[in-house]
Amino acid sequence: MINRKMSPEKLMKGVKFGADGLIPAIVQDGLRGRVLMVAYMNRRALALTIRTGKAHFYSRSRRRIWMKGEESGHVQVVREMRIDCDGDAVLLAVTQRGPGACHTGHRSCFFRRARGVGWKVVDRLAFDPDRVYRRKGK
Amino acid sequence: MINRKMSPEKLMKGVKFGADGLIPAIVQDGLRGRVLMVAYMNRRALALTIRTGKAHFYSRSRRRIWMKGEESGHVQVVREMRIDCDGDAVLLAVTQRGPGACHTGHRSCFFRRARGVGWKVVDRLAFDPDRVYRRKGK
Repeated sequence: MINRKMSPEKLMKGVKFGADGLIPAIVQDGLRGRVLMVAYMNRRALALTIRTGKAHFYSRSRRRIWMKGEESGHVQVVREMRIDCDGDAVLLAVTQRGPGACHTGHRSCFFRRARGVGWKVVDRLAFDPDRVYRRKGK
Repeated sequence: MINRKMSPEKLMKGVKFGADGLIPAIVQDGLRGRVLMVAYMNRRALALTIRTGKAHFYSRSRRRIWMKGEESGHVQVVREMRIDCDGDAVLLAVTQRGPGACHTGHRSCFFRRARGVGWKVVDRLAFDPDRVYRRKGK
């Protein structure tokens, strides 16, 4: 459980950020659920996630920190945070608020599956993205 | 299901490799199981994964293609392959052969959890890595 006793400084020591200052963060619906999305964190996004208990990322395209759900309200409450053996990837087991994590309206961003002819949409829409997002974004 | 009818060329069109030619691959124990590991693929690793049905990656440190389990025998049989909304991350739902995916002897590479004082090992060893790996590696 993420809580106020956690020290971002102490946790940060075990994290190996890449040359670009980023680390991939895998967001999972609980520790045994669907993988909802993959995004990137810089030091500040990780510190904000630890301090607030809500998933924050760094957008490479928009070049800014964002909180998941800042526009949609589909906040991700972090239940558990893990790090891999090499310290260069983090896993967030979250409770996804609202119907889904993807700006396309799907619960998971991984809604397309490999088929012989290409990538096929296999998950149903969980919400109408046009009603939730005013502009394109996550 | 990964099968011979799949066309690596057609699937590759929907994949956005990074400037370094790589894409992160999340490996999950089935579609609703533990996240086992995160590794990277280049075009060739992805094509080999599609053709053989066994997870192949590109090692940034060793600068070569590797098949998961090539040393340990702990092969990952790919049951399903998914891609995210942006086309820049893939998810492999696998059947993990053998006791675990991590070179440390754990089932998942995400065996450490954030605590107030740092990252704490919370998963038990699934196998003795010294018996399985002759040299350090995955």
